[in-house]
Amino acid sequence: MTKVSSLLKLAATKDAADSLSTKKRLFDLPAGMVYLDGNSLGPLTHAAKQRAVSVVEQQWGQDLITSWNKHQWIDLPVKVGEKIAPLIGAGPEQVICCDSISVNLFKLLSAALAMRPERHKVLSTIDNFPTDRYMVQGFSDARVAPDVELISVSEADIVASIDDSIAVVMLTQVNFKTGYRLDMRKVTEKAHQHGCLVIWDLAHSAGILPVELDACQADFAVGCGYKYLNGGPGAPAFVYVAKRHQQHYRQPLQGWMGHANPFTFDPDYQAHQSIKQNLVGTPSVVSMSLLDAALDAFDETVMFDIANKGLDLAEWFICVLNKLQLDKLFEHIGHFDRNHSGAQVALHHPHAYAICQAWVAKGVVADFRAPNVLRVGFSPLFLSFQDIVIAAERLADVMQSTYYLNQEFQIKQAVT
Amino acid sequence: MTKVSSLLKLAATKDAADSLSTKKRLFDLPAGMVYLDGNSLGPLTHAAKQRAVSVVEQQWGQDLITSWNKHQWIDLPVKVGEKIAPLIGAGPEQVICCDSISVNLFKLLSAALAMRPERHKVLSTIDNFPTDRYMVQGFSDARVAPDVELISVSEADIVASIDDSIAVVMLTQVNFKTGYRLDMRKVTEKAHQHGCLVIWDLAHSAGILPVELDACQADFAVGCGYKYLNGGPGAPAFVYVAKRHQQHYRQPLQGWMGHANPFTFDPDYQAHQSIKQNLVGTPSVVSMSLLDAALDAFDETVMFDIANKGLDLAEWFICVLNKLQLDKLFEHIGHFDRNHSGAQVALHHPHAYAICQAWVAKGVVADFRAPNVLRVGFSPLFLSFQDIVIAAERLADVMQSTYYLNQEFQIKQAVT
Repeated sequence: MTKVSSLLKLAATKDAADSLSTKKRLFDLPAGMVYLDGNSLGPLTHAAKQRAVSVVEQQWGQDLITSWNKHQWIDLPVKVGEKIAPLIGAGPEQVICCDSISVNLFKLLSAALAMRPERHKVLSTIDNFPTDRYMVQGFSDARVAPDVELISVSEADIVASIDDSIAVVMLTQVNFKTGYRLDMRKVTEKAHQHGCLVIWDLAHSAGILPVELDACQADFAVGCGYKYLNGGPGAPAFVYVAKRHQQHYRQPLQGWMGHANPFTFDPDYQAHQSIKQNLVGTPSVVSMSLLDAALDAFDETVMFDIANKGLDLAEWFICVLNKLQLDKLFEHIGHFDRNHSGAQVALHHPHAYAICQAWVAKGVVADFRAPNVLRVGFSPLFLSFQDIVIAAERLADVMQSTYYLNQEFQIKQAVT
Repeated sequence: MTKVSSLLKLAATKDAADSLSTKKRLFDLPAGMVYLDGNSLGPLTHAAKQRAVSVVEQQWGQDLITSWNKHQWIDLPVKVGEKIAPLIGAGPEQVICCDSISVNLFKLLSAALAMRPERHKVLSTIDNFPTDRYMVQGFSDARVAPDVELISVSEADIVASIDDSIAVVMLTQVNFKTGYRLDMRKVTEKAHQHGCLVIWDLAHSAGILPVELDACQADFAVGCGYKYLNGGPGAPAFVYVAKRHQQHYRQPLQGWMGHANPFTFDPDYQAHQSIKQNLVGTPSVVSMSLLDAALDAFDETVMFDIANKGLDLAEWFICVLNKLQLDKLFEHIGHFDRNHSGAQVALHHPHAYAICQAWVAKGVVADFRAPNVLRVGFSPLFLSFQDIVIAAERLADVMQSTYYLNQEFQIKQAVT
């Protein structure tokens, strides 16, 4: 028996014991592809595919403007928010679907800074996803609030850097490149001891880790609809505002959909005293409908099981690399520890981009993060343990050939 | 020959002479419906319907993350912006598709206010579409820039109210309720004489009037993708920044897609020194693709012809109401004048809501604007002169019955 076939046999045993294995049939995956990039763009579900037809052809095409009521388009942002809430440990009336992560960060940053008027510092990490940092820098760069200052520290120094001068701690729970996971409870507690507010970016944790916003006493959060939630390319994002803040919270992007009574066309703004205040313009109905449908894949699941499977898949991948002696062909494999990592693994190699492209050519999709990281993501709802072995076997082919070294690959990058 | 059949005969002559009449076949309209609400939600085109299938099933479903390059998702905001540009009299590299009108207004307001740091007043109209006003109010309401003050005047008083204390004049070219059209050139000239910057909201003019942003020396503009451009419910909006301002312009919603080199993942923001600076988060690919496809309906058209047909349809509607003696059944018909109106007519009646619902029940869709306006829009690409007669005949049925008076209609409103 070859190494691969014995690994496949072992994987089959794991798959047979996997309570989530039936979820795979909800997805419309390309034949023969192993998709290790659900952390960048989640794949299409059959439900979203059907919804695309119904929202475009029936609702828009036939029922036109009457669909705002007939098909409850007007309720979509709240409905989708409430579907996301249990995935991130949020009780009702605290999550709503709208705009992009970046735009939602601006709302939260503005509101949080206004709640700490005597402070001007926002603490974040130097390698936080750039858009999070840029949003803070925008306050002073564009002279909206020139006093706002971004303080950048390494992940290891976050807790020690929190003091009474900080207005807002803004962090991404799972590092987009390394997969390193922060301790939400510990950081939030320390921040609150010093009177800071905390904004959590859940881009790489919503739908893959058992986030506990309410239990950690989080203040604010944002997250992404198109990664682990499988909402489709550019799906709208979500925003969380803890109930205890909703009376004091005031975000500046005052649009008509966030008005207490949008259809009175009042000339003066009255904020809806709820999570709805975060609505701005007309919601992106088609995209939000796809996300709504995609979220049904989480029905009858428990985030704890999903998280465990994601981490199991990541560990299994590292184990298979080791068995096939592939680990030695990389500079190093990014540190993975199930207590401090998301469901992703970073393989470091000077030719990471070329390897990534060659792997894609063999039907395994992961992604490249400059300058030298092959980022591999483990989305538990559609991946099996056997998929991981197949992916590793194809990676062995790539690494054994010199294909990836002989090709000229143009570096054109995909969107995170 | 009945009045209606003679009107239909005359309409047929008009339709035969209409150079845009063939455009109707591009639309997938419900059988038997006359849709007079393209100014609220434009209808589905066959091209958008096909694109929905290809973007969801092929691009997302099969090509997944590789579509960012393979199907040029990454170029969509610029591509769609350049398609919109000629419809609004804008030369290249000045228009981009992104976010919602409301969010785009915030970018422009922030940037324009920063360009006039010694001034704090934004002049607008009291009956501008509420979201435009709310966005200005947000600066002080949410304590982002407490000095910013919204000055509200009537449409008749705009020009006289422009003086050296005003930083920004922010106006909607066509009033959303009355259809009254402002003189873009005259207002812009006066504003510039006093050192003010002007933001034009083209929600009710893009795709229906020959807007001349460059020729009028406009500074900034925003507009809507889901009305006359037929991009689908909640389609992304667009933003225009005159070339001469792009070096000085700095908007605060700094997202990674607006960075000079988004894929270097630079920890510090460097604004793209172009219209691209307006990009924030990941673009709404599915919705933007539908808009991209829908815009092809404007191929080989001239905005002057479209505008003329829209105004002709509006005049013809008023003429038919008069011939059928329906005009007398309304309190009054809002003033319509082809030199100062958009392609819409406002019928005033205390039971406007009930009449609107009864008309819908007979297959004619218009919309209601509180408290007493039946708003009728004339989108020239899919409406014929015969459609107008049919719509009026059905309105006669509604008005002759007491149906609309006897029903209890729940006032649930559609989105503008």
